[in-house]
Amino acid sequence: MQTDMRINEERFKIEFETLAEIGLSNEGGMNRMTFNEAHLQARAWFQERVLEAGLDFKIDQVGNHSGIYSCNISDAPTFLVGSHLDSVPNGGKFDGALGVLSALEVVRTIKEAGIELPFHLEAIDLTDEEGTWLGLFGSSALTGNLAQDRIENPKGGREAFSAALARAGLDAGQLTAAKRDPHSLAGYIEVHIEQSARLTSAEKNIGIISSIAGIASYALTYLGKADHAGTTSMSERLDAGLGAAKFNLAARELVMSEFPGCVVNVGKVELQPGAFNIVPQRADLTLEFRAPEAKTLAKMKRALLELGQECADEFGLGFEHAPRGYIAPAPMSADIQQAFASACEALSLSHQPLYSGAGHDAQSFASVCPAGMIFIPSTGGSHNPAEFAAWADCVNGANVLLHTVAVLAEIGQGGE
Amino acid sequence: MQTDMRINEERFKIEFETLAEIGLSNEGGMNRMTFNEAHLQARAWFQERVLEAGLDFKIDQVGNHSGIYSCNISDAPTFLVGSHLDSVPNGGKFDGALGVLSALEVVRTIKEAGIELPFHLEAIDLTDEEGTWLGLFGSSALTGNLAQDRIENPKGGREAFSAALARAGLDAGQLTAAKRDPHSLAGYIEVHIEQSARLTSAEKNIGIISSIAGIASYALTYLGKADHAGTTSMSERLDAGLGAAKFNLAARELVMSEFPGCVVNVGKVELQPGAFNIVPQRADLTLEFRAPEAKTLAKMKRALLELGQECADEFGLGFEHAPRGYIAPAPMSADIQQAFASACEALSLSHQPLYSGAGHDAQSFASVCPAGMIFIPSTGGSHNPAEFAAWADCVNGANVLLHTVAVLAEIGQGGE
Repeated sequence: MQTDMRINEERFKIEFETLAEIGLSNEGGMNRMTFNEAHLQARAWFQERVLEAGLDFKIDQVGNHSGIYSCNISDAPTFLVGSHLDSVPNGGKFDGALGVLSALEVVRTIKEAGIELPFHLEAIDLTDEEGTWLGLFGSSALTGNLAQDRIENPKGGREAFSAALARAGLDAGQLTAAKRDPHSLAGYIEVHIEQSARLTSAEKNIGIISSIAGIASYALTYLGKADHAGTTSMSERLDAGLGAAKFNLAARELVMSEFPGCVVNVGKVELQPGAFNIVPQRADLTLEFRAPEAKTLAKMKRALLELGQECADEFGLGFEHAPRGYIAPAPMSADIQQAFASACEALSLSHQPLYSGAGHDAQSFASVCPAGMIFIPSTGGSHNPAEFAAWADCVNGANVLLHTVAVLAEIGQGGE
Repeated sequence: MQTDMRINEERFKIEFETLAEIGLSNEGGMNRMTFNEAHLQARAWFQERVLEAGLDFKIDQVGNHSGIYSCNISDAPTFLVGSHLDSVPNGGKFDGALGVLSALEVVRTIKEAGIELPFHLEAIDLTDEEGTWLGLFGSSALTGNLAQDRIENPKGGREAFSAALARAGLDAGQLTAAKRDPHSLAGYIEVHIEQSARLTSAEKNIGIISSIAGIASYALTYLGKADHAGTTSMSERLDAGLGAAKFNLAARELVMSEFPGCVVNVGKVELQPGAFNIVPQRADLTLEFRAPEAKTLAKMKRALLELGQECADEFGLGFEHAPRGYIAPAPMSADIQQAFASACEALSLSHQPLYSGAGHDAQSFASVCPAGMIFIPSTGGSHNPAEFAAWADCVNGANVLLHTVAVLAEIGQGGE
């Protein structure tokens, strides 16, 4: 492949701006929740772009849909480039949409250049990454990771979920049939906004993801004694709220000092009985923490639960904990990381390794085929209308994907 | 009065045990919420005891009802001894009931001894001290402290309140007519269980209340920024929950070190948006603190709100506070405290000054006439079935009231 090949920057920009109007509220927020009217409209618009580009259009049983540039090798595997068109309520214009349009642009550019690849190249829009219904729905189903109990317990209930699937022409009974043979998957790559400030701080163009963080969550409970807040002296009290407060502060200090780069969050606290004049008998809090490696996540778990007990002991309280979720860290393919680095160098773009604190479809693929992700610098976080990426960075991201496909095509079937 | 005079211990015990059956649940909790069936039954039982004792029976427009031992002086004022028959849901047997029966026993004993007093002596059951509907309802109305806006906003709503009044034969339109001429009130005294462990710790028989604590309450808010709990590094966050946690711990330390004997409570905390994976944008908490003197309460207010701001500054958060309630401390009459002490000494009972952290009807009276309270040792706190006082202490309390009336009768019209 020629090192001077680039995606069509003008077309990319027009399409980004067109797509960004679909589901935009008057307040500037994006409302393309999976299978709502705006989302279905965006899907139809994507299908038109695929057909207009002369790519093969494919849709599977969970609504993942794609534009495919097929190669001439009969049993060639498929290399996927993708992201998602759905958004959270009042979301931003970049999260997901940028990745889908970058993927489409990469596939069209390679097709237009008439380059022959050793794999089919597929630009894919993966269904419901954000979890209006299930979260990583499309990529889980495609990679065979969609558990039956998740299908049976969608957010919003089964009836509404079935109705939503029907609006998209899908059958609730056929969802697991979207699974593809892992041998048919050569790899998966994606570009996404960083949603954080690490690249901006480091003044780098591209972040190459080494791992998508694992997430562990727990429900913690401190147990004290409900007492009259007027007649019970301070030293007599068993105030469950104090254990919760101490843990919140101490967990932050522990993670910042012992687990640099990792994160911890106490997102919810509830005191019982919850009155001005009653000493709290019970405090329930949610704990979530993330680390790029399974070993680190396990070490955090031990340290945080031990700390939880220490905070209880300090105030004479009972302490209970129950797991609420676990998502294993997903290491990205070393070969794909190397290909990203080569592509950046070919394009004279600076880069650095990063891990992703947020979940992405790439983690579904990591269990069945080589998977990789890059981040471009962004501001304003994400999942809100303020999320923003400079257009030059968006173009850089798409070009890195383009050159990465070229690198991987040259070294073999998508890495590994 | 003879120093060997005592209340009728046996009658007192039988009546206490009889009353303790009215409204008792199978689980041992007392359920005499104002104007429910059990409460009306207890009221009827009290009226029978008054009439049986040959006392004058009086009921006013808010349902306060009394047994009166009248004196022969035409324009004599009335000295009140009282408490309340109502309970909180699943309350204990002592809170309120012990004071009413002690009052009745004191009045009967003096009548039976044929002692002539310079005032009418009235054993009174004050309506709804616990606040099923209004809180300190009867004593507020009697002393002219019942504000119209409170009448219009009873807990449970006006309709249910009117229906409850009707069940007791009362008219919702006549409540403020229960006000008595302050000049007709010679004083008010009450015995109550301590609901705390100060007397037990100090091994004293009687606590003489110097003041009923004032109560100030505030709604506090910390304001940060909602962020993705996976992608936002620890140092970038503006976590409102941290301000709330720090304040909870620091407020306790401040009050324990700078305001000994005073109390502070954070009874409720709410984080917004309240999800495992979102950094809290907003934390709302309730703050209540109590002190025996207005000066101390004002000093606590300044110190706690200043601390609230410091906790916000430490984490880069916004801080807001709004007052939610203020009840001024109610100092008890010095003359009555002196009379209590004399009575204790006559009875060879040890005593110590205390302040009351909880509200009581005596605080309504403190604004219009000399008021006093004593506590007897108790265990198990209060407002729960475990509250308990040893019978010997209950008898001591009633005898102290008896001798206090005698002391006050001798020095004049109830003190001051």
